[in-house]
Amino acid sequence: MTDFAAIDHYLEQHLDESIAELSRLVAQPSVGAQNWGLEECASLVAEMLHRRGFTVQVLPSGGAPIVYGERRGRSDKTLLIYNHYDVQPPEPLELWDSPPFEPQVRDGKLYGRGVSDDKGQFTARLHAIDALLALDGELPCTIKFIVEGEEETSSEHLFAFVENHQELLKADACLWEFGGVDHREIPMQYLGLRGICYVELWVETAKTDAHSGLGGSIFPNAAWRLVWALNSLKGSDERIRIPGFYEDVRPPSPRDIELMSALPEVAEEYKQRYGVKTFLKGLTGGVELQLAEVFEPTCTICGLTSGYQGPGSKTVLPARASAKVDFRLVPDQRPERVLELLRAHLDAEGFSDVHITDLGGEPPARTDPDHPFVDLVVRTAEPVYGAPMQIVPMVGGSGPNYPFVHTLKLPVVTAGAGYPGTLAHAPNENIRLDLYLKHARHMTRILKEFGGE
Amino acid sequence: MTDFAAIDHYLEQHLDESIAELSRLVAQPSVGAQNWGLEECASLVAEMLHRRGFTVQVLPSGGAPIVYGERRGRSDKTLLIYNHYDVQPPEPLELWDSPPFEPQVRDGKLYGRGVSDDKGQFTARLHAIDALLALDGELPCTIKFIVEGEEETSSEHLFAFVENHQELLKADACLWEFGGVDHREIPMQYLGLRGICYVELWVETAKTDAHSGLGGSIFPNAAWRLVWALNSLKGSDERIRIPGFYEDVRPPSPRDIELMSALPEVAEEYKQRYGVKTFLKGLTGGVELQLAEVFEPTCTICGLTSGYQGPGSKTVLPARASAKVDFRLVPDQRPERVLELLRAHLDAEGFSDVHITDLGGEPPARTDPDHPFVDLVVRTAEPVYGAPMQIVPMVGGSGPNYPFVHTLKLPVVTAGAGYPGTLAHAPNENIRLDLYLKHARHMTRILKEFGGE
Repeated sequence: MTDFAAIDHYLEQHLDESIAELSRLVAQPSVGAQNWGLEECASLVAEMLHRRGFTVQVLPSGGAPIVYGERRGRSDKTLLIYNHYDVQPPEPLELWDSPPFEPQVRDGKLYGRGVSDDKGQFTARLHAIDALLALDGELPCTIKFIVEGEEETSSEHLFAFVENHQELLKADACLWEFGGVDHREIPMQYLGLRGICYVELWVETAKTDAHSGLGGSIFPNAAWRLVWALNSLKGSDERIRIPGFYEDVRPPSPRDIELMSALPEVAEEYKQRYGVKTFLKGLTGGVELQLAEVFEPTCTICGLTSGYQGPGSKTVLPARASAKVDFRLVPDQRPERVLELLRAHLDAEGFSDVHITDLGGEPPARTDPDHPFVDLVVRTAEPVYGAPMQIVPMVGGSGPNYPFVHTLKLPVVTAGAGYPGTLAHAPNENIRLDLYLKHARHMTRILKEFGGE
Repeated sequence: MTDFAAIDHYLEQHLDESIAELSRLVAQPSVGAQNWGLEECASLVAEMLHRRGFTVQVLPSGGAPIVYGERRGRSDKTLLIYNHYDVQPPEPLELWDSPPFEPQVRDGKLYGRGVSDDKGQFTARLHAIDALLALDGELPCTIKFIVEGEEETSSEHLFAFVENHQELLKADACLWEFGGVDHREIPMQYLGLRGICYVELWVETAKTDAHSGLGGSIFPNAAWRLVWALNSLKGSDERIRIPGFYEDVRPPSPRDIELMSALPEVAEEYKQRYGVKTFLKGLTGGVELQLAEVFEPTCTICGLTSGYQGPGSKTVLPARASAKVDFRLVPDQRPERVLELLRAHLDAEGFSDVHITDLGGEPPARTDPDHPFVDLVVRTAEPVYGAPMQIVPMVGGSGPNYPFVHTLKLPVVTAGAGYPGTLAHAPNENIRLDLYLKHARHMTRILKEFGGE
């Protein structure tokens, strides 16, 4: 019978040390988009694992190196843990209350770029490992860490890396990089991620802008071409018009609907937070809104650019126009298929002049909500949080979980120290120290039970 | 019998003085869009007229002051001359070979912001007046100058000013601010201007952008709303879909078609200058292209803005989107009517959420190409340019000629020192000194013949 009182005592006693270690990691900038500090941060991650007796390899990926660490445990079970050491750019700097790479504790929170996404999740897990090693001398199961450096820039090289290192990464289950509580302080089990296909559509109708008084009625206008091409993709009924787009869409199962029905109402919160007055397609709330949010694929214009955008008027006929468009995909859609269908559709509609630049894609992937490992992680949360985790079968965002689910064939579950005010990707990113400790406590229980203890 | 040899000799002998005067005027910045130096420039214009015996008033307009100057002549004929003292912003400064407000002569051209548009046209006319006064001691006709300071920012207060000063501005004919030769060095008589209705269409669907993974399928997207609203205005057949839009369009007359047919071919020049590969509506050149260019009203997207516009991808669902849209109008369309029709159309199509900001309008106006004053100006060009002017019954651009044509009921004709390389509105704006002199010579002939001499 495990003495969790002693473990929890250890975690509390050594929390300051763990936060100091996290602070060192955060103080090492590792901004993927700016190619800043990635190698140095990978070395620091490797050193942290090595110090705990992990066999560590810093492996080339084609981009930022991937840190792999392995330490064998008592049982024959193996848990693969996925984290990433790269962070979002810190800009705009003037909106930070303390410098992003000089972490600072205020009001029970640690502030800094990457404290929550994802460095704090990683060190909270190390903290749990420290407690188990300190009290037991060994781990209850084998742990394999894969810590990549390109998560914030679409994990360009991770898919091939997993494909090429299946034996190395062999495991029985996978713990994902993030997790946390919702606004009620209930821990949430986020199970699936939608896929994404992000493109830039652009048109160039001339080599230079013209005066609108001259060309308005005789020159092709790049902005008009773009508007018409976009309009061909989706109408105000929200139906995506690309032939074949919906072919691979699998609707939510009765179990999905049951799980989604149990989730708290979001309509009012969305209206307040975003100032949205009504939802699309006549939705007003309830499970219908929740299902629409994650189980339907989307086509979102993320940005539009053309011609004159300053104050007042300028009579210009633009030679170039472009749009950023993001398709969120649900099982079993695939980004490469969407690219093909999009090209074929634009050509068929007479928009061969509209070019597509592929800005990255990830397929959707889901874990069965009734997998025993999901149940294990959900149950072991209860003694820590006062409630078991609540299962969210799929979320609206995207991530590189596909190769873990489909190549390695692992259940991928979430647990972490996040909360709704964590401000990942924004100024004043922070992590709550109480939730940091809770995640470490939860981790010790996951590892113990997974190891059969 | 007028001794034009003596006049021409005077003009040549005193050209340097006139260019020095123009340089002083250009050295006084008068950028309407930046509200920079307008009062000072108006004073300078007033002083220049006063020095020549004009009775001058600097009149309030509600915006930049309007300079009015009058000097009586021998005959009972009165010519009203319209010019403007405001200029376009000089930016981008780094593209100028010499500072925009330090005029410099190089290779027979004077460079500086406003040398051609429109300060040089004004001083070339003063130069002609100086010659006549020096040789004859008086003017052959009464000259009234109206020099405004808001031409580059839509002449917001000029229409009301003309309406309220009809007695003061009473005349027999009007000479417009610009004119010049085409690429063949043939002087052109540009007679009519299209109208304009310039609007910003904008939508705001939320108070803040959302993550596209969250809101893509349930939140209204400002960029999509804008695309659909724009698409409702015009399809790829180029037909403007606003009901009633074409109601007031008067087609070109047989005389218009005859005059347009006589103009040189433009198709190849446009293809080379702008890199346009094909023209709209299957047009390839000839009079059909010329007629389409100016006798059809247009709906041009001049700019699009929404969401993320930087490099790479950002998964944002934009709360705001806007487009700059410019309608060019032909007789007898009116901008205020277009605004009404546009609002009604958007409402009828379900786009009441799409707001319209009126960024300025001017109705179209034309002068009869067979008016005797047109003939006078056309004919008097021949001894100066070696050819009479060629008549262009209407051009694609816009300007505030409407109140002169319709309120004052004057024929409005053009003559000036412009040429295709003048770079008005662009860096390195310049005026050719040989054409400056020719315009002054032409002016002396216009004034003499108009005065019956």
